[in-house]
Amino acid sequence: MSILVFGHKNPDTDTICSAIAYAELKGKLGKDVKPVRLGEINEETKFALDYFKVEKPELVENVAGKKIILVDHNERTQTADGFEEAKVLELVDHHRISNFNVDEPLTVRMSPVGCTATIILNLFRENNLVPSKKTAGLMLSAIISDTLLFKSPTCTEHDIKAGKALGEIAGVDPQKYGLEMLKAGTALGGKSEAELINMDMKTFEIDGVKVGVAQVNTVNEAELLEKKEKLISEMNDIISKDGLKFFLFIITNILSNDSIGIVAGEGNGIIEKAFNVKVENSLVTLKGVVSRKKQVIPPLTKAIQSL
Amino acid sequence: MSILVFGHKNPDTDTICSAIAYAELKGKLGKDVKPVRLGEINEETKFALDYFKVEKPELVENVAGKKIILVDHNERTQTADGFEEAKVLELVDHHRISNFNVDEPLTVRMSPVGCTATIILNLFRENNLVPSKKTAGLMLSAIISDTLLFKSPTCTEHDIKAGKALGEIAGVDPQKYGLEMLKAGTALGGKSEAELINMDMKTFEIDGVKVGVAQVNTVNEAELLEKKEKLISEMNDIISKDGLKFFLFIITNILSNDSIGIVAGEGNGIIEKAFNVKVENSLVTLKGVVSRKKQVIPPLTKAIQSL
Repeated sequence: MSILVFGHKNPDTDTICSAIAYAELKGKLGKDVKPVRLGEINEETKFALDYFKVEKPELVENVAGKKIILVDHNERTQTADGFEEAKVLELVDHHRISNFNVDEPLTVRMSPVGCTATIILNLFRENNLVPSKKTAGLMLSAIISDTLLFKSPTCTEHDIKAGKALGEIAGVDPQKYGLEMLKAGTALGGKSEAELINMDMKTFEIDGVKVGVAQVNTVNEAELLEKKEKLISEMNDIISKDGLKFFLFIITNILSNDSIGIVAGEGNGIIEKAFNVKVENSLVTLKGVVSRKKQVIPPLTKAIQSL
Repeated sequence: MSILVFGHKNPDTDTICSAIAYAELKGKLGKDVKPVRLGEINEETKFALDYFKVEKPELVENVAGKKIILVDHNERTQTADGFEEAKVLELVDHHRISNFNVDEPLTVRMSPVGCTATIILNLFRENNLVPSKKTAGLMLSAIISDTLLFKSPTCTEHDIKAGKALGEIAGVDPQKYGLEMLKAGTALGGKSEAELINMDMKTFEIDGVKVGVAQVNTVNEAELLEKKEKLISEMNDIISKDGLKFFLFIITNILSNDSIGIVAGEGNGIIEKAFNVKVENSLVTLKGVVSRKKQVIPPLTKAIQSL
């Protein structure tokens, strides 16, 4: 029976491509490891798989009784059903460790880098191996996705070097290919306002104040700003339902690496203080902001704590 | 401010020596890292430190506000006070992951090997570095301690190879030095019956049946068996206090790698079934048994589950 390797639920490009890459590495080391996925792939990942002519991994919903390897996640809420009845052999990840409990010692490789694929390239090298051309292309795609083409503050020097090396193996120009891939991932046409807000929505509780922050990437903010009133109406519904103080919807332009925020609820004062900007007509300009984790939540936290 | 590196509370030889070894490695890599300990060192560790003329690390009781690296443990109950207020940079360990939650991504190296020092030797090698003679001696001591001189079922091929290499760097014969060190750790003279039982006592609940299992290492079981009646009396006190079905006190001879068990309470039937042996005069011979985790708890679990 093959060992299964997979990333998180609601898969992104790093989760899918790192599972494929790690299965290839283990295969070269003589292990029978098969990449699988826990959900539907997104448009960006589809572009990468199509470009490098790789089939999407098989869908698996329950891993009870299986031997498994986790990549790109470790928290219990993000992993497969049946986790408690599986035997966890390995973990390769770049996130914090939280709610990950296992009965037996296992092999773990984690680094605070921008992308799991960067760690996996290191593991190839430690074994004096090189990923195949296709797999190098997918690993490059993962790094581009997680680091927004090397521009996110989560990107490290290791990710940049890995991306360059993988681009050479794959025979593609990271900048040119990367923009195409990111654009493919921003195909938002046809999505309803509720779908846009729920694509990547999280709520946070800071000093007892609950706030919602959603984010989408785009190359055309105008088409989203046209929907401003309907988006605010959706955001107000979530504010009432979840008891939030305010909701910030961040539209990030992946070409300019700037964002525009749409604000609903009682957020103007906090947001103006956090980012030292004016909210006008429910809109706020966030120059150079691309990372919710590193550039939005910390200043919001400070502003709320100083209320 | 130095980064602090430390192992678990109630420190053993691996915890102390791996902290010293990892601090040396990080120092060679240009980092200011200081080994510390969370409690008193035992006789075995003292022997190793004295032999290689290394000072014991400084005692630290609270790590709030510090940057820290954990070795040889990860569970919250085993680590330092103030953990939540510290910044965890790295983790190097060979145990299961349980109750370990951090807010930020970190560097983690774990392998299912017999000893943390085996992983640390690998990290030296990945950086093209070699531990100093003294530190190699301490790392060898850690491996000998955790694997009972390469004879525990937790010992892997990696531990054996690492031990051989470290013995060469340290200029000691692992077998000869190892026996001396293990013997030093079995200096039980002067300990009361209660102290002997509490040196390494754990309780387990299996299918609603609570049992106690303690273990000591020795080269002279006779001096312990002389105290049999007093030990049983202590064990009976614990049985009453903790509501146990029975208590098994395992005396492991580190030269022969066999054990003798002293049984108190209603354990004869279960123990005879578990190990396929007779209990006579509250004593049972456990040929080839050295590991509570791998050789005692699993058969007891099976025997209790089939009651």
